[in-house]
Amino acid sequence: MESLPHCETLLLEKQGPTLVVTINRPDVRNAMSLQMVAELSAVFSQIESDLSIRAVVIRGSGGHFCAGGDIKDMAGARNQPAAEGEADPFYRLNRAFGQMIQQVNESSKVVIAVTEGAVMGGGFGLACVSDVAIAGPTANFGMPETSLGIIPAQIAPFVVERIGLTQARRLALLGLRINAEEACTLGIVHQAADSDEELEEMLCHTLDRVQLCAPGATAQTKALLHQVGQENMSGLLDDAAQKFAKAIRGSEGAEGTIAFMQKRPPSWAEPD
Amino acid sequence: MESLPHCETLLLEKQGPTLVVTINRPDVRNAMSLQMVAELSAVFSQIESDLSIRAVVIRGSGGHFCAGGDIKDMAGARNQPAAEGEADPFYRLNRAFGQMIQQVNESSKVVIAVTEGAVMGGGFGLACVSDVAIAGPTANFGMPETSLGIIPAQIAPFVVERIGLTQARRLALLGLRINAEEACTLGIVHQAADSDEELEEMLCHTLDRVQLCAPGATAQTKALLHQVGQENMSGLLDDAAQKFAKAIRGSEGAEGTIAFMQKRPPSWAEPD
Amino acid sequence: MESLPHCETLLLEKQGPTLVVTINRPDVRNAMSLQMVAELSAVFSQIESDLSIRAVVIRGSGGHFCAGGDIKDMAGARNQPAAEGEADPFYRLNRAFGQMIQQVNESSKVVIAVTEGAVMGGGFGLACVSDVAIAGPTANFGMPETSLGIIPAQIAPFVVERIGLTQARRLALLGLRINAEEACTLGIVHQAADSDEELEEMLCHTLDRVQLCAPGATAQTKALLHQVGQENMSGLLDDAAQKFAKAIRGSEGAEGTIAFMQKRPPSWAEPD
Repeated sequence: MESLPHCETLLLEKQGPTLVVTINRPDVRNAMSLQMVAELSAVFSQIESDLSIRAVVIRGSGGHFCAGGDIKDMAGARNQPAAEGEADPFYRLNRAFGQMIQQVNESSKVVIAVTEGAVMGGGFGLACVSDVAIAGPTANFGMPETSLGIIPAQIAPFVVERIGLTQARRLALLGLRINAEEACTLGIVHQAADSDEELEEMLCHTLDRVQLCAPGATAQTKALLHQVGQENMSGLLDDAAQKFAKAIRGSEGAEGTIAFMQKRPPSWAEPD
Repeated sequence: MESLPHCETLLLEKQGPTLVVTINRPDVRNAMSLQMVAELSAVFSQIESDLSIRAVVIRGSGGHFCAGGDIKDMAGARNQPAAEGEADPFYRLNRAFGQMIQQVNESSKVVIAVTEGAVMGGGFGLACVSDVAIAGPTANFGMPETSLGIIPAQIAPFVVERIGLTQARRLALLGLRINAEEACTLGIVHQAADSDEELEEMLCHTLDRVQLCAPGATAQTKALLHQVGQENMSGLLDDAAQKFAKAIRGSEGAEGTIAFMQKRPPSWAEPD
Repeated sequence: MESLPHCETLLLEKQGPTLVVTINRPDVRNAMSLQMVAELSAVFSQIESDLSIRAVVIRGSGGHFCAGGDIKDMAGARNQPAAEGEADPFYRLNRAFGQMIQQVNESSKVVIAVTEGAVMGGGFGLACVSDVAIAGPTANFGMPETSLGIIPAQIAPFVVERIGLTQARRLALLGLRINAEEACTLGIVHQAADSDEELEEMLCHTLDRVQLCAPGATAQTKALLHQVGQENMSGLLDDAAQKFAKAIRGSEGAEGTIAFMQKRPPSWAEPD
């Protein structure tokens, strides 16, 4: 395992092949600061090539996932006029958040969001790029930007990718807040738990399933899913068939098919 | 407020920041005529730059939303052979409808469809481009075109955008009719009311939410949502960050953040 | 009716305007062999221009739809190294399956999948390209590839098209198995039957609806639906309006509108 970056806004804990990232600014309901954006980005960069990590769990401390952008950062940016030839500080603040979101979306690890309490603005955007999202009973989702006179600039596009234009336009244009059950119906989260115990059970089950799947094959499958709609279907399928041939001739493919015939779990499914 | 165009097929009523457009050909279940298409298009063109209007409600008189294309217009077009060098009258009739639908889809106002009774063919298409669609207990949705030997040419694409290919192919290829509840499950409408009273309550609640959101920010957000999937995600996010910086430095951004800190409603949220 | 190709892995039965294709390798839960891929492709090629066939029902014998790729074919390909200048046999095996799936997806006929028992891997992919999918009470869906160290190369893209990226990433990355009810909620199938009787009733109702719709208009509508998102919306609507004009001036359009005015069923709706 490579060393993880030092973080002030995040708690990092390695649990077997899982990295648990806890957003840790409970006094401001884990509001997303510029520093937090930089730290999340550094963590995901660091683990990208770390073969000992297969899943990343993102959750918040103090009962909230993330309440959105930090008002203090906003105030700081307002007082900074853009220097000549430089981008507006608001532009840089906003775009840095979007770049982090894109990075999490395309991470080769299985990203699991455990959403509780406030899941607003930037926090909502972050939940929308997870591979699996689970909501606790207190979770509350929304894009309040337009009610503040601003726009969900880096978030709305990922909400459209998550739940489609039809539902995104209603949520964003009315600045609605919705609970876990409705978020599950719309597909923002995949599962909604009725209690904290059930939430932890759902998380455990998800991590058990990650363990059963070969890490390399999982990363390749995730990359393939992201390509759909970005390129011509025939070309994508040609490319995918090349990767299939390579995978089945590779070490994971050999171990997986032999284990299957020997009716034993493959090596990657055994606890470390 | 700028003057609204004179209409024969539509009733127009301004209610505060809301324009209520009532399709008014109850004797033919509000069938969509060429004139109605032209009048809807003129209304949406006129209000596009009218800052006094923030939401448009589209509904039908006599218990029906809109039963689809007008058979008389069809018969008229059949008797007109295409003149040399001119487009077929059926082409012009059909395409004019599609252009109106595109215009409503991209309107900068929040468009709310109140669907009751027949929501068929062209009426179905019109409902599918709303930002918020609410169904009353009698609403009945369908694309009967293929059962008449014709094709839902300008409608089917918007149905695919609304509910995805998977559900659209079943609905269109079987010429199915579905009720409000199923339409809500599929995402054609966002909410289905059990009674007329509940329908009006849902509409009021939607209009109250529109009032809470800044008009300029809402229009920009709507435009942003429509861009997703039309262009490269990184370029879209770059552009969105520029708009974010402009919004937060603009008058709505200033009013919104000050009002938030002063714990008072922003100016746009107060009744006129 | 043109003669159907001789098949060893499929049973073919013509029932009026419907071709019932039964996958018939019950001893291996209808696992998808290279031969089966070739036979399915030959059948769909043959019927493409056969005007006597309007719908194709795909189902499996022995209580299973299709359990996915054939292990024997896999073993055969493993023992064949790629000859110089030739594609890897695994590549050819995988890509041939994807080409058949694309062909079924774009068939001009209405394709109905009746899913029971195992609907896994390649079987799952085949179900995902149907126009209408109905699940029986025993149906069980999943993409087990990554748990075997390989990737759902030709399948995952069609799963994304079927149910969207959000649900596809969870299903594929966790190698989950889901039942008929959840498959219906996610949109993999359109209807889930509680009993075998209800399954047959749903199939009958679907075939009755196919009969009510004009065959040529249905084929054109299906092609139109597939174009959405592949090209610019305005261009697509221009093209669709041309097809609308041609359809309404054609024989189906004439028969459909006359039958409607005469309050009688159109010719295509009458039993052969």
